[in-house]
Order: sequence, then C-alpha cells, then structure tokens
Amino acid sequence: MKEIYLDYAATTPVDERVLQEMMDYFTKIYGNPSSFHNKGMEAKNAVDNARDRIAKILNCSSKEVIFTSGGTESINFALKGIAFANKERGNHIITSRIEHHATLNVCRYLEKKGFEITYLDVDKDGIINPIDVEKSITDKTILISIMYANNEIGVIEPIEEIGKIARRKGIYFHTDACQAAGFLELDVNKLGVDLLNLNGSKIYGPKGIGLLYIKRGVEIEPFVHGGGQEFGIRSGTENVPSIIGLAKALELTHEEMQKNNLKLINLRDFFIKKLLKIPKSRLNGHHEKRLPNNVNISFLDVEGEAMLLHLNEKGIYASTGSACASQSLETSHVLRAIGLPYEASHGSLRFTLGNKTTISDIENVLSILPNIIETLRNISPLNLNMEHYK
Amino acid sequence: MKEIYLDYAATTPVDERVLQEMMDYFTKIYGNPSSFHNKGMEAKNAVDNARDRIAKILNCSSKEVIFTSGGTESINFALKGIAFANKERGNHIITSRIEHHATLNVCRYLEKKGFEITYLDVDKDGIINPIDVEKSITDKTILISIMYANNEIGVIEPIEEIGKIARRKGIYFHTDACQAAGFLELDVNKLGVDLLNLNGSKIYGPKGIGLLYIKRGVEIEPFVHGGGQEFGIRSGTENVPSIIGLAKALELTHEEMQKNNLKLINLRDFFIKKLLKIPKSRLNGHHEKRLPNNVNISFLDVEGEAMLLHLNEKGIYASTGSACASQSLETSHVLRAIGLPYEASHGSLRFTLGNKTTISDIENVLSILPNIIETLRNISPLNLNMEHYK
Repeated sequence: MKEIYLDYAATTPVDERVLQEMMDYFTKIYGNPSSFHNKGMEAKNAVDNARDRIAKILNCSSKEVIFTSGGTESINFALKGIAFANKERGNHIITSRIEHHATLNVCRYLEKKGFEITYLDVDKDGIINPIDVEKSITDKTILISIMYANNEIGVIEPIEEIGKIARRKGIYFHTDACQAAGFLELDVNKLGVDLLNLNGSKIYGPKGIGLLYIKRGVEIEPFVHGGGQEFGIRSGTENVPSIIGLAKALELTHEEMQKNNLKLINLRDFFIKKLLKIPKSRLNGHHEKRLPNNVNISFLDVEGEAMLLHLNEKGIYASTGSACASQSLETSHVLRAIGLPYEASHGSLRFTLGNKTTISDIENVLSILPNIIETLRNISPLNLNMEHYK
Repeated sequence: MKEIYLDYAATTPVDERVLQEMMDYFTKIYGNPSSFHNKGMEAKNAVDNARDRIAKILNCSSKEVIFTSGGTESINFALKGIAFANKERGNHIITSRIEHHATLNVCRYLEKKGFEITYLDVDKDGIINPIDVEKSITDKTILISIMYANNEIGVIEPIEEIGKIARRKGIYFHTDACQAAGFLELDVNKLGVDLLNLNGSKIYGPKGIGLLYIKRGVEIEPFVHGGGQEFGIRSGTENVPSIIGLAKALELTHEEMQKNNLKLINLRDFFIKKLLKIPKSRLNGHHEKRLPNNVNISFLDVEGEAMLLHLNEKGIYASTGSACASQSLETSHVLRAIGLPYEASHGSLRFTLGNKTTISDIENVLSILPNIIETLRNISPLNLNMEHYK
C-alpha cells in the first residue's frame, strides 16, 4: 500500500539536501562553538554563517536572529520575554482567538501573572480585522501577537496592516510565522514586525530547532539563563547540526517558493472543488487568503475521527485540526471562532499538501473519501439538516 | 597534522552507533508524535520506547522523564519551575559557588525576583561539606541544587549524603548531572534526588537534546506552555531523532562505563603524574573524588590562553575552564572558590579525555607542553614565587 501523507502542516520530513548539509556536524565538525580552539571556531563559523544566511532571507541583521528549540519555545520566549520586561509600562496584550495553543496557553499563564489579554474575534472566514486591533489598544497595551497564517484553516492574516498600526502606536508586534514560512514572504521590515518566529520542522528542516527574530532595541527578558549564548538571551550550547539544517531548509523553501506555491495552489483548488461536490460539505477558512497547501473541509453528519481512522487504514494520513490538539476531544477553537456549529466542527478534516504530493495522490483520496463518508453517514445517529448548518 | 581533541567536557562528537540509530527518523519515520495516524503513531512509539529505556537507567518511571533542548534548559526548568511553584512555602534556595553558569545565572535571576540564595563554599579540593548544606537550611528553604560533578575541575560532590539530608528535611533536591553522566551511576533513588538533568552533547549523543528527571509529586511550574507535550509541562513538537539519539547514547555510555572509566583513569593519572613534573604546577580539584577524564592543572607564571593558542597551533585542543565561559577574561569562579590566587587561576589548563583518547595522544601533549610553558615563562613579565602560591 502506498502511503499518502497529507499532514505537512503537522510536520514535514527532512529534505535530503538539508540532511546532507547537516551530516558533517554530528561526527566531524562537532566542536562547541564557545570553545577557544580550531574545533570550536569551525563550529562557531558554521553557526555564524547560518545566521547570516537566515538574516538575508528575513531582511534583518544577523544579531537579530536568535536560535531556539522550536516554534513553541520561540512563542514562549516572545510573549513571556516581552511581558515581563515591559510590565512597568503596561499589562495589556492583544492576540486572537485562533492562535496556536502555544500562544493561547502562554496568554493564559500570563493572565495568572496579572496580565490582561484581549482575544480578538475573527470573521466567518477566519480573518482578523485590523480595525479591531486598533480599537483594542489601550494605554496599557505593550504587545500585539497575531499569527501570520493559521495552522488549522490556513488563512493568512493582514500582518502588514496590523504592523502599520503597531508602529504608529509604538507597540511591539509579534507574529507566529511557523505555518507561513516556506509559503509567504518573510521580510520583517515589509511586515512591520518586531518579533517573528518560525521553526525547522514545518519547512523540511529538522525538528527541535527554531528561531525568534527580535528587532534591535526591543526590551525582552532572557528566556534561558546560563553561559550567555545567543547574545546573552538564550543560553545553552548551540545545536550546530540543526542550525545548519534550519538555514538550508529556509533557503531551499525560499528559493523554490514561487514554483512550489503554483503547483500546490493548483492541487489544492482541484482538491477543494472535488471535495465540495460531496453533499453537505463546506470549506473552512477564506478561499483566497489561504496557504497554498491547506484544505480544511467540514462534512456534516459524520465524525472527523472516524473519517481519519478509515483514511489511515488506506494509508492516507490527514488530521482533524492541529496535531498538537488532535488527541483531545474538544472541538477546534479555530472552527468555533469562525462560528461553525459543534456538529460541523466535529466533521472537519484538514489535508495539508507538500512537496511530494501528486495529482494521483489527490485522485486516490477522492476515490476513497466519498465512500467512507457515505458509509459513516449511514450508520450515524446524527441526522442534521443542512439548512441549520449553512 | 593529527588533531588531538582533549575537550570532551565541552562537547563530544556523536557516536557513529548513535547517529546510525537516529538516521531513519529524519526522512522516514518523520511524523509528529501528536498526529492521529500511523505516521504519527510510529513516531510516538519511538519516543515512548526511548523514554522507557532512559527510565530504566535512571531507575525511575517513564513519566518522570521530561525531554528538553539540553542541559541549560533543564537547569532553568528545574530551578525556575520549583521556585515559582513553591514560593508560597518559602523563598530560600541553597546552591554552591562552583555550579555551572546556568545554575548561577538562574540563581541571580531568581534573586531579582525576590528569592534568597545561599552559595555554599567548597573546600580547597572543591568538595562541598554536607554539614554546610544542613546548617544553611532555614524554614524558608524550598530547594537544594548541587552539581553531581564539576565541569572545570571534575570533582565529584557527595550527592547521596546531601540527598539524605534533603529527604530528612523534606526539601526538594536537584542535581546537575551533565558532567557526571557517562561516568557515574545515575540511579535517582540511590542518589536521593528529586530532580536531575543531563544532556546528549556530553555523552556522545546529539546537541540540542537533554532531559530533566522530575520525581512524581514534585510541584513544578511548566517551563514551555503550548500543545501539552511532555505530560503538559514542556510543550513543543518532540525532537524525535534526537530523543532516540539521547536514549542510545545514554545506553551505550552506561553499558561501557566500567571499561571506559578504567581506561580513562589510567590515562588521566599517567597524564597528571607527568604534568606535575613541570615546575611550578599543581593539580586543581580532589585527586580521587574526580571524574575519570578530568585533568585540570595550574602552571604559575604563564597565561592559560597563551598555552591554549600554542597547543591549538599544534592541533591539540584543550580549554582553560568551561567552554561557556572560555571567551570571557574573568578568572574561573571555580578556581577562585577553591582558593587559588589570581595568578595561578590565569595559568590553568583543562584537559578532558574521551573515548578516542590514546596513550600516544597524551605522550604527544607531554612532548610539546613543557616547551611551550618554558618559552612563555621566559617572555613573561610575571615573576612570582612558588612559595607564595602553594
């Protein structure tokens, strides 16, 4: 049975070219970059070089790139770091209801520490209105944190517009670009962000590595104290092979972005068009303002988990929401935020396409999924009316 | 020129057998362990299996093993996590003057947050007196954090004895075992510790991975908030290849410990004996209560950095202290703590041996170093009396 992996938003395999570039750093160029000898210096030079290459893509200075252990750590660093370093200036943070659990759970933690969080609503397509951001700003607001693109429904948020508001008001602006990286431009100046995070495991790089862009001059508390690595704010011996891998992965996805996006958009739109022919189905999230690889569809009168299990048996790997929350029985906070009723949230599937996805993979899924849905609907106790749901 | 790496305490190369075991997890078993399909499950099973294998070595339950991004993060997690979760019970923490910068700098951070830290002195051999630990305990004491073995002078601290005191007094006890791992027993019950950290990059495993053992029932604040991985206290997609690598590295170093220790102790003692024949030299740290691979010697009237540079030119890689602090010009806090005068601290070298070190490497260093020292002493403005120094 050929496996069809359609869960690239959960994580990607490491690109062979990335792995190739990492290999020497495990057993040959293995020094500690802080060591005062050639073996340390060659590791340090490799890290410096990786940082420079990444800075070029982000259009920032190398000193503004801080390596971390991944997207979730970067988000913790950004939010806690800004909150605790700026609490004398204010205790108010603006975010949205559809952020990743990392952002939402850090916000809940900060609430316990005396911070006030505004969770902005989104429209029925999942888009945040910049005017809502502006209206929420108070003289206590120290940070706005809005994701660049959503991990479940793939919608792309108006980061540039929010960035302009943040600059005008003099408020720090952070964006979680974990899902956007590889598909969208990452020029931090154009975006107008003060902090931006991304990670390796979503862009065909290794797991366990990420970065946080922090604009020069931003007041932030160190996240990991120790030997003073990463300009004194994120200590710990540098993960040299993975840093090299992250740089290579970011370069490759950036170089090949246009070509890959075109291919993916074609596949995605074909897939969506065909899936919407299944009765009682709807696309979740904005159709155009959407990542090239994201397909999120709800099917009424059927359980998402049941569909996943049947697909899994056929070697087709998809998701009901973000991987991080897929084992909980709660319905997706993102689908609730766009106003989807409980029954429809429960019948949603997320397919995220990637560089190995072919038209025949999609056709394969399309030849199987309608039957699965029909079978499940026949045995379902649910009997809801589509009118109620639209 | 053959390179002679004698800086294994700074970091080790990845063992080929470890790398071999990791390889499939980059490009084949690449799923996100939280994903609800076979590709996710096989990754989850691999992580579970690695956790079980590690728990066996630590003699603890698998649920007590938390994966992190390394030693420094683990120390931050342990100290901050215990401090913030238990601050209602007390604000006093006991540690020592010779801890790693990770511990010391987290303690300084905690001081700013209202905690009081006792930094215990050590004796002239670098050993902490358990009686001093007991005497420092107040009714506000919530945590004792003492390293298992020191990274600069290799001394082994009386962890079991301190563990007994901590248990009797009902105070949490943490030990940093980054340097001890691979050389000393890691049975957490025998040691009597509530928290213990180690990392991959010191035991021929990958960089960027570590663990924190947290005894069941210990009150600790999560370090990274998010999707709820690692039993809800250290979120972020699991670094699957590196977790597999850490388990394999720990198994191998544990299995081969006795044999390797015997070999290293022989090499170390031969090396020390010969080095002490160089005039105006002394061994830093206890001779017997010492890691099998650590040689730390001071040579009077000569600069450590100058010796390092000359050794480096000959392809011999050593250190003056810990890698994390080697680029600062301050003298070592560890050498100051054992009462070494400034002049002698400045002339110290650390050689740390490893699995590839041979007797001919040592003889090679011994054929070169005395000449380097003599040359440097001849041009040195220092002219101190050995009497003053002993």
